Amino acid sequence: MKIVIIGGVAAGMSTAARLRRLDEQAQIVVLERGEHVSFANCGLPYHIGGQIKGRESLLLHTPASLKSLLNLDVRTGHEVTGIDRAGKVVQVRAAPDGRTYAEPYDKLVLCPGAQPLRPPLLGIEHAAVLTLRNVADMDAIKARVDGGAKRAVVIGAGFIGLEMVESLHARGLAVEVVELQSQVLPPLDHEMARFVEDHLRQKGVTAHLGTSVTGFRDAQGAVMVDLQNGTVLTADLAILAVGVKPDTALAKVAGLAVGPQGGIHVDACLCTSDPDIYAAGDAIEGPSRVRAGDWCTPLAGPANRQGRTVADNLAGRRTPWGGTLGTAIVKAFNICAASTGMNEKSLQRDGVAYRKVYVHAGHHAGYYPGAELLHLKVLFAPDTGRLLGAQAVGGAGVDKRIDVLATALTAGMSVFDLQHLELAYAPQFGSAKDPVNMAGFIGANLLNGDLEPWYAEDYPAAREDGIIVDVRPKADYEAAHVPGARHVPLPELRARLGELPADKTIYLYCKIGFRSYLAMRILTQRGFKVRSLAGGFDTFRAWHGGATA
Amino acid sequence: MKIVIIGGVAAGMSTAARLRRLDEQAQIVVLERGEHVSFANCGLPYHIGGQIKGRESLLLHTPASLKSLLNLDVRTGHEVTGIDRAGKVVQVRAAPDGRTYAEPYDKLVLCPGAQPLRPPLLGIEHAAVLTLRNVADMDAIKARVDGGAKRAVVIGAGFIGLEMVESLHARGLAVEVVELQSQVLPPLDHEMARFVEDHLRQKGVTAHLGTSVTGFRDAQGAVMVDLQNGTVLTADLAILAVGVKPDTALAKVAGLAVGPQGGIHVDACLCTSDPDIYAAGDAIEGPSRVRAGDWCTPLAGPANRQGRTVADNLAGRRTPWGGTLGTAIVKAFNICAASTGMNEKSLQRDGVAYRKVYVHAGHHAGYYPGAELLHLKVLFAPDTGRLLGAQAVGGAGVDKRIDVLATALTAGMSVFDLQHLELAYAPQFGSAKDPVNMAGFIGANLLNGDLEPWYAEDYPAAREDGIIVDVRPKADYEAAHVPGARHVPLPELRARLGELPADKTIYLYCKIGFRSYLAMRILTQRGFKVRSLAGGFDTFRAWHGGATA
Repeated sequence: MKIVIIGGVAAGMSTAARLRRLDEQAQIVVLERGEHVSFANCGLPYHIGGQIKGRESLLLHTPASLKSLLNLDVRTGHEVTGIDRAGKVVQVRAAPDGRTYAEPYDKLVLCPGAQPLRPPLLGIEHAAVLTLRNVADMDAIKARVDGGAKRAVVIGAGFIGLEMVESLHARGLAVEVVELQSQVLPPLDHEMARFVEDHLRQKGVTAHLGTSVTGFRDAQGAVMVDLQNGTVLTADLAILAVGVKPDTALAKVAGLAVGPQGGIHVDACLCTSDPDIYAAGDAIEGPSRVRAGDWCTPLAGPANRQGRTVADNLAGRRTPWGGTLGTAIVKAFNICAASTGMNEKSLQRDGVAYRKVYVHAGHHAGYYPGAELLHLKVLFAPDTGRLLGAQAVGGAGVDKRIDVLATALTAGMSVFDLQHLELAYAPQFGSAKDPVNMAGFIGANLLNGDLEPWYAEDYPAAREDGIIVDVRPKADYEAAHVPGARHVPLPELRARLGELPADKTIYLYCKIGFRSYLAMRILTQRGFKVRSLAGGFDTFRAWHGGATA
Repeated sequence: MKIVIIGGVAAGMSTAARLRRLDEQAQIVVLERGEHVSFANCGLPYHIGGQIKGRESLLLHTPASLKSLLNLDVRTGHEVTGIDRAGKVVQVRAAPDGRTYAEPYDKLVLCPGAQPLRPPLLGIEHAAVLTLRNVADMDAIKARVDGGAKRAVVIGAGFIGLEMVESLHARGLAVEVVELQSQVLPPLDHEMARFVEDHLRQKGVTAHLGTSVTGFRDAQGAVMVDLQNGTVLTADLAILAVGVKPDTALAKVAGLAVGPQGGIHVDACLCTSDPDIYAAGDAIEGPSRVRAGDWCTPLAGPANRQGRTVADNLAGRRTPWGGTLGTAIVKAFNICAASTGMNEKSLQRDGVAYRKVYVHAGHHAGYYPGAELLHLKVLFAPDTGRLLGAQAVGGAGVDKRIDVLATALTAGMSVFDLQHLELAYAPQFGSAKDPVNMAGFIGANLLNGDLEPWYAEDYPAAREDGIIVDVRPKADYEAAHVPGARHVPLPELRARLGELPADKTIYLYCKIGFRSYLAMRILTQRGFKVRSLAGGFDTFRAWHGGATA
């Protein structure tokens, strides 16, 4: 059997390697249009930033090493220009001589990846406006930085955008970032992203949020970036990181089905609309583990594991692809942000009912030095408590909590289950009641009716139909509080019941939602109508962007 | 309703706090014989070691703070001396005046914890022989260290033993450790513990393994520790950390059932043999999530969550306790070791069929600087692949992998499921194929018959019925190899098939088990009889203790 694989990075190389292990006799040809195969895509920003010193450490394999280890026929600089599905032949153009040839296949695998979006903006062809997707892109950006660039604008505050912000900042550039949405990291909900925005500000990075780029102009070799809000930024370098789109050019020309999200359509086993052509990686549109319909999820982990799945199917083992969660993580300076599953925005968009809880806690026991603050948001079904998604922002330990929650989500666990996850505890690593357990406790209290929450978004409406009461210590209240809130510190509450109205809803809050929960339990059992602010003042401030009295 | 809780640390305080939240009217009395309630047990070694500077940071609450926040009646220095179950009264002796009184209860909760084992050894009463369980113990040890102790012997190389080794070493003491078993960290399997032993040795800590202490003698205020193997150690301080036993003194006198493992017997809802008495924490013997029968699992996480469960039951909500996994972690110097579920020794002891895989991998992508080596062992059922247990040793990222595996274990996941866990990947945090995915791939290959393993313990028998072939690069082979192994580097294998016997089993190995798997796939499909060494030479050396040619 002869297998031709188009694309030799994550999905393509995983397909080839796994297929060789399953079938020593198969003829396996990998056609890669770029100069490199199997390079570390996710490392590109860090060679620019200098964290990864050696360029060669990103180049994990060569055609020679793949021939020697896996007996693969890997051809770089070979671009497929057409697919003759009836004849089962691909047309190839080989660089550098431009020679063309036809390569027959028994089975074809499409792993062309995704292309960075380049909106048709005025002046986008300016030499200082660059994207980052492959080694050549990296080299071009690095050359500008090495050449003395002092100011950079990063357009797009998604995961790759923020990695570029950090890397350019690490090289001493003054960096500004522009994002169309009114928050950084659109995969997160805005109140979670706010912690990242605060951190960027502390690092001296200006974020222009809720505005778009209208065009680029030359300024003696530098580039002027015009924003819709009228701001003009000038930089030696502008990085376009506004997203990627599946590379479906070949698939479309060949008449293969493309899905509504714009990715190559695949069935449960990653086969395209042609039974002899499979597809994997960033170019496809496939099932989600948490969301109805097919989605494009351009992530390295799924791409690698999809390649493996395609190989299993090619080897005659019917192996469905289970779908993606969309688990992703980014580090920017000293802050990490990660998410898995659905966020609140997407749940609302899809019309899915949900509840939510927030945890603000140290990433390990507070009595051991070095605990870093962790902000966690968990979304779950209102009836069963089944997990729908989670987001975490903080320093150390963000990745661990999201990985635990991604595993729990995959297993179909609920917030009730989270309560009793037995996670490893020593004071350097966690707490006897880990933040994940805490999310479970709060979620279970909420579903059991022990906790009646109110949310940051209920303000200022909450002021109208009730009173807001701050139960934090006096100093905290005096430093900042929700506008209009009265102050009754928790330890005085039992003695000051007379000050509280019996006929109005009492909207309690504290710093993170624990003391106000205690207060709520005290008052509820005495007949008061009470709610406790989810996530406390920490979430309130994040939600409202620091609007406090 | 009046609830009396005996013991005010992890389980006791969790019971009291949760119960107050559920029942504002209940009268809740906590009787703690020690001087402190709610102290950070797991932090004690680190105040001695100086990592935690302020002693007060270990004392999380006082009776006054608990009165103010939770309206609890907490009495420290109050020891319960007897339980009159018929009369529903406990007898209390109050320090310091020795006054005794009777305290009636409607429901009683036993949370007396566990006591450090003090074997009846000759000279054990020597003033320099100390245990560590509470704040007073900590103060006594710290006083000796502050007083100029130069040499310490830690007896017992379990989790607390190793924490004390690190902490005393951090204070500049020369530390030796003695362990009855022939390995450190008995909760781990010996080949996994070996990585920890190597690290201790590098840090200048001598481990006396497979020998016991026969007695202590005075040496002008210092202590001489006699070992069964004839060695005599001299130290200014000897820490006994040979384990703990449930404190069942009161329960026994009161005629409550005690289980075969020596802990207080409880039913599914943590009720003792008396329907008005519950028990939680280190003193009980309860169900395991992974093992038949009841077990003592003296761990802080379960103790806290058991307290919560007891409170739910006391408040009239029938809430079963789900059982423990035994998840635990320890850090010693720069190495971490953690485990969850069953280990291989306990599976063998219980006669449970299992398979195992090893992964040796960086804790994050190798191309990003700072990847630390992670050693992972996963045990699972031979039929379904259902997880049974896991162990990890390494630097960063050990806690994360064990937490993910503990979650997967709780969910009843299999190695097939591990393959497709979608964990957060950016190069600072993991790999596109995380070590946990790798364990899934290897386990699935093994159960699917794609990988036929052999194990370190099959040596030297493997030499008799076959040949051993090393497929690593030449330099690795020359540096060290399995005695008797031939050398055929993987890239040459396809060309040197003629050198291999068609009639004998070929026992392949490489460094970690990946290249030998590739070699196996090449040879198996050509009709050779082949096996691939699980975990490769890294596991082989750990298993055999460095026995190499």
